[in-house]
Amino acid sequence: MKITYQGETGAYSEMAVYKFFGSKVEPVPCKDFTEVFESVKTGAVPHGVVPIENSIEGSVNQNYDLFLTYDLKVCGEVAVKLAHVLIANPQTKFDDIKTIYSHPQALAQCRRYLENNKWEIIPAYDTAGSVKIIKENKLAAAAIASEKAADLYGMKILARDIADNPSNFTRFLVLGLEDAAPTGDDKTSIIFSAKHAPGTLYHALGEFASRNINLTRIESRPTKTTAWQYNFYLDFEGHRTEKRCAEALQALEKYATFLKILGSYPRVI
Amino acid sequence: MKITYQGETGAYSEMAVYKFFGSKVEPVPCKDFTEVFESVKTGAVPHGVVPIENSIEGSVNQNYDLFLTYDLKVCGEVAVKLAHVLIANPQTKFDDIKTIYSHPQALAQCRRYLENNKWEIIPAYDTAGSVKIIKENKLAAAAIASEKAADLYGMKILARDIADNPSNFTRFLVLGLEDAAPTGDDKTSIIFSAKHAPGTLYHALGEFASRNINLTRIESRPTKTTAWQYNFYLDFEGHRTEKRCAEALQALEKYATFLKILGSYPRVI
Repeated sequence: MKITYQGETGAYSEMAVYKFFGSKVEPVPCKDFTEVFESVKTGAVPHGVVPIENSIEGSVNQNYDLFLTYDLKVCGEVAVKLAHVLIANPQTKFDDIKTIYSHPQALAQCRRYLENNKWEIIPAYDTAGSVKIIKENKLAAAAIASEKAADLYGMKILARDIADNPSNFTRFLVLGLEDAAPTGDDKTSIIFSAKHAPGTLYHALGEFASRNINLTRIESRPTKTTAWQYNFYLDFEGHRTEKRCAEALQALEKYATFLKILGSYPRVI
Repeated sequence: MKITYQGETGAYSEMAVYKFFGSKVEPVPCKDFTEVFESVKTGAVPHGVVPIENSIEGSVNQNYDLFLTYDLKVCGEVAVKLAHVLIANPQTKFDDIKTIYSHPQALAQCRRYLENNKWEIIPAYDTAGSVKIIKENKLAAAAIASEKAADLYGMKILARDIADNPSNFTRFLVLGLEDAAPTGDDKTSIIFSAKHAPGTLYHALGEFASRNINLTRIESRPTKTTAWQYNFYLDFEGHRTEKRCAEALQALEKYATFLKILGSYPRVI
């Protein structure tokens, strides 16, 4: 089974694909997140996997926005522990390094380590992609990516444990044309826009609180149509087909100008 | 009066400094946001100005996090309309362009325009800074920044209105050692961490709803200490010294493991 992800072989997203679907899948790299959504929408692949939030850097905004644009479902979640290492070509010595390549989130996660050294920082589209760049261009630079990426590209690891915070996880969502069946321990993700009146968000959240439905995440994103107005993204415990959840979702419509149910899926975090 | 901001001369942040403080101030550029916070903390300057959210791309995460780390106050807000143009060296023709430099948020705001052309995208630390890069290195590339940045560096404008969405504003906060006195039309910004129990966020928001205090913004950021736990950032209408606001803030302590009042300031948006 082919599963799309953004990045290059060795990317953390590829690890998420293997962790969720097992070792027999065929991960298919995409250049950007839009391509992942598009590949599922067109039916080219049954599922794609995209990062949605990191335990340090927070939301991956572009994917929140793509869930609004595309009419796809969430059918799973998976978390991957990020362990960044400093990677260079085998002949490069630590003192030769003048520039560092990596994805902006990985660079941000290693901010303190990078500030203690006086390197030029160059953002790249992917962690494993940055390893590929310094390998293909034979640069006397270093990349920040996973140990697996270093191995895959036959590169040398110059430093380990370089992240500011060792407790560094990324949560990924699995995309599909349908969501998942109830398992008894599920989560549901929705997007809604609260009517413009004082207390609307409070009353909307009350529909969950009064039914003892635990919210695991609330995020707001600009509507992009009117400045300083927001869509809310909620993740809550329970499957959308459970009575209390179905009732809360129905009640929510009183407070929402629009409501989109992204889907229910087995809870893993 | 010296006021710090992040970026180079011609940056949107510099426009925010002039818009808030008037034409007689002396804007002082800083390399990064930490330097802006540090310059105010040490007393080197009385105020700094930092972007906090954009009406399309959303929050500027690093500044949300710096407000948590630094013990500084918010004493004002200001919004600037962003009008991106495509900028090149005077001798560069449109068809010569192979690469585009700009700040990642500006690149994201022009995503559709960039996708329609087949350029290589290179993120830079600042919009005006990207103009400086292509000027100083005499690159046959283009930068995305304001018309003002093009003028300041003596560069040519190759295209206007290149943003996906013409309604594009950034909201900036003004930092100081103290917040602002009440004007009768104010806002207050706070950070709090909700106790870990179902419905806590709902009950916390209820302290505002029950007093008819309008929330203008809610944002969540990872605590960074425990994965999948969040601090909430609230902006609400009213001054912290107003009776109803003071009461809400006191009541909030029942639901919060910590509460930090960033300050009250005149409302402009």
